[in-house]
Amino acid sequence: MSMLSKRLAAKLGNDLVLADGEGMDRYLRDWHRDTVGAAVAVIRPRSVTDVANAVLASRDLGLAIVPQGGNTGLVHGALPQSPSDHVVLSLERLNRIRTIAPDDFSMTVEAGCILSAAKECAAENGMFFPLALGAQGSCQIGGNVSTNAGGINVLRYGMTRDLVLGLEVVLPNGEIWNGLSTLRKDNRGVDLKQLFIGSEGTLGIITAASLKLTPLPTQRETALLAVASLDDAVALYRLARRECCDLMSAFEFMPPEAFPLAQAAMPDLVMPLSGQYQAYVLMELGGSGLVDMADLMQRFLELGMEKGLILDGVIAASQSQARTLWSFREGMVEGQVKRGRHLRTDVSVSLSNLAAFVAEAEAELASALPGCLAISYGHVGDGNVHLNVLPSAGTPDGERDAIIKRAKTIINEVLFRYQGSISAEHGIGREKMDDFRTGLQPTQVQLLAALKAAIDPDWRMNPGVLF
Amino acid sequence: MSMLSKRLAAKLGNDLVLADGEGMDRYLRDWHRDTVGAAVAVIRPRSVTDVANAVLASRDLGLAIVPQGGNTGLVHGALPQSPSDHVVLSLERLNRIRTIAPDDFSMTVEAGCILSAAKECAAENGMFFPLALGAQGSCQIGGNVSTNAGGINVLRYGMTRDLVLGLEVVLPNGEIWNGLSTLRKDNRGVDLKQLFIGSEGTLGIITAASLKLTPLPTQRETALLAVASLDDAVALYRLARRECCDLMSAFEFMPPEAFPLAQAAMPDLVMPLSGQYQAYVLMELGGSGLVDMADLMQRFLELGMEKGLILDGVIAASQSQARTLWSFREGMVEGQVKRGRHLRTDVSVSLSNLAAFVAEAEAELASALPGCLAISYGHVGDGNVHLNVLPSAGTPDGERDAIIKRAKTIINEVLFRYQGSISAEHGIGREKMDDFRTGLQPTQVQLLAALKAAIDPDWRMNPGVLF
Repeated sequence: MSMLSKRLAAKLGNDLVLADGEGMDRYLRDWHRDTVGAAVAVIRPRSVTDVANAVLASRDLGLAIVPQGGNTGLVHGALPQSPSDHVVLSLERLNRIRTIAPDDFSMTVEAGCILSAAKECAAENGMFFPLALGAQGSCQIGGNVSTNAGGINVLRYGMTRDLVLGLEVVLPNGEIWNGLSTLRKDNRGVDLKQLFIGSEGTLGIITAASLKLTPLPTQRETALLAVASLDDAVALYRLARRECCDLMSAFEFMPPEAFPLAQAAMPDLVMPLSGQYQAYVLMELGGSGLVDMADLMQRFLELGMEKGLILDGVIAASQSQARTLWSFREGMVEGQVKRGRHLRTDVSVSLSNLAAFVAEAEAELASALPGCLAISYGHVGDGNVHLNVLPSAGTPDGERDAIIKRAKTIINEVLFRYQGSISAEHGIGREKMDDFRTGLQPTQVQLLAALKAAIDPDWRMNPGVLF
Repeated sequence: MSMLSKRLAAKLGNDLVLADGEGMDRYLRDWHRDTVGAAVAVIRPRSVTDVANAVLASRDLGLAIVPQGGNTGLVHGALPQSPSDHVVLSLERLNRIRTIAPDDFSMTVEAGCILSAAKECAAENGMFFPLALGAQGSCQIGGNVSTNAGGINVLRYGMTRDLVLGLEVVLPNGEIWNGLSTLRKDNRGVDLKQLFIGSEGTLGIITAASLKLTPLPTQRETALLAVASLDDAVALYRLARRECCDLMSAFEFMPPEAFPLAQAAMPDLVMPLSGQYQAYVLMELGGSGLVDMADLMQRFLELGMEKGLILDGVIAASQSQARTLWSFREGMVEGQVKRGRHLRTDVSVSLSNLAAFVAEAEAELASALPGCLAISYGHVGDGNVHLNVLPSAGTPDGERDAIIKRAKTIINEVLFRYQGSISAEHGIGREKMDDFRTGLQPTQVQLLAALKAAIDPDWRMNPGVLF
């Protein structure tokens, strides 16, 4: 134990402070296991008061705090960078569900509660918490809120921001702001919780959140559809948005390469459609109550075929078949990981630019980096593309770095022409800081600096991120 | 013209500055024509640059700015208070629709654009802007955004905050922040636009907004339902939320007194239901596309009757019948105005407290103010009640003031016990400042003060409101 970590343990108690190298390991590695950070210690509070004390103790010792949830972020926002003055503050022990009130369509959970645990508790009460993402078995609500997490259901239910009714936050001065509330509508001026949603732990530490719930869907219809092009996928989305109204919960597009990639990760997967097509859509309708979703899906598919937008398709006949269809989407991500280090992006453009952006970026990549595989997939309704670039199998590590850097520059240049965002849902963290800074207007810099100075004047909260 | 207004006109040009008493009148009276404010002048910019110049000119002359939209607010947030150092900055001339992109489900409009004009433009393009409120023929988008307006469709589409994709704002230092964007998903850190939404013009002047659109509903089903109690209305809402899933766009409750009040204002209205009931619900389903809404409404009503929650009901057979049903809701508001000055509230509690809160508050009002009529109506799904108290017909003005004050105290005390909000949708403005201050926590006061100091350090923006 270093001197600093000993002093921290003396202030907070040994139970709350972890300073042993091996035990700290899992708090210092990122989700992809690519990158390792460094910190003086990991503080693991058991209560909101513990968090407040940890903030004060860290301040006294001149330590900066890196708040951490499930450590599943993709942009190194929770990865400490200094063995001499960063401490990780893990919220994992604050994991209670404080209240669930199905009659009020709300629940209040602590920051360390695992997303899937919150979803299960809601389901046991006949309710649904709509946030859905790959990491839901590990990520925590506090992390979801502070990164404003997205996922596959955004087109219907919005980002995490849209699902939050209230927050409890420990401020950089150690005071606790109790902004928890299950009121659906409360319009008393400036909405302070918005400051902490998506600000990646730079303005305070979220310790609990009140969340909106909706009735648990009792019907869910999933279809895999083949279309002629990404352009047609966009046209089909517009049709679905109109014809299925507010009952569509997912509309993902995938390129043909998705299937061999998924099969490389999950060899048992059998391609559900014969024939080769330029693009695929995974679509989900769902909800509770009186509308017959199976009938709606069937009629929508007929309409899409009539209009020549759907070339082939399969509707899952059971929940297990639906899971298989989704496993292509998930397997494709795993398949990419198996291909070794590669560029992952998370960009967005307006819907009408989506197909053109992807075509242009892929063409430029193909010409500049002919040996690489560029693969674009994502959430059509949100204009959100994960355009990833995979170096060919045998590429040595050093060369991979150069390729990744080059590919990112190419994509960002095309993105800039389309006035897109470098981060549709993953946030900025430490990884995207350079690109984030480049895109800022002077007035935005002024506003951000004024905010940081107002709320965290000593820059104690997650330094290196956002500001 | 005063010396100050002359100097203002010299800086900005006569065309932009109105300092004549008579012409200023409509900018100085509140929506209910109860209250008159006072200002040095009214500035009416024609462009964003004009707004920026007006901010700088006002600063040079030591004037504070009261931004004003359609002047339809209910809490005096846009009402200037000083003939010596307040200027009204009216956005009415910035009223263009800059772009509408149905293919992107978005539009960008200037702050002075009338809400109904924005809605009509969307409709002409097959799209729908869901914000819907009584004042929509006069209120302006800038005012809607800066007050985070609510209305009858909140249960489905959210408050104005949930409908905004981006903003353009003139900051208190005269700089222009261009945060317009039609990206559906953009997660680059702190979401600055949230600072200006709902902050009632105290942190900057919104000059344009990018808005989310949804497909134009092609079906709309409206029903008036009789229920045994407000408790049953809440139970029926929960059932409707589950059975009609995300296709319900309004669920308003009204007391039996609504009908005579509406008929007093609109004598031609014929009561659509025979029999007397304790509570009524006005419910609307709607949407575009393949779901048969008429069938859904029919089946839902059958289910509600089977469960004993609906005692009687009528479904509008045409759009004109639907308008008649809604005119009870609107006529009830006009009927109250006819009764002379009275207390209007806009409170919210959690859904499971709604019926108990109303019962308790009405009982205490009946016992303390036996001559008054208390009338509660509002948006069930949002837990939002307008509990208004009407003094009896002949009550003289002075006595009315005392009754209104007393009634407000009684309601706020009950509300406090139920942890409700004194402003569900109308905002704080100048009228609710005292009650707002009373409810603040010390940490909240600190955060608000820090924000104000960071963004409007000289307190030039809408003084007397929120801070």
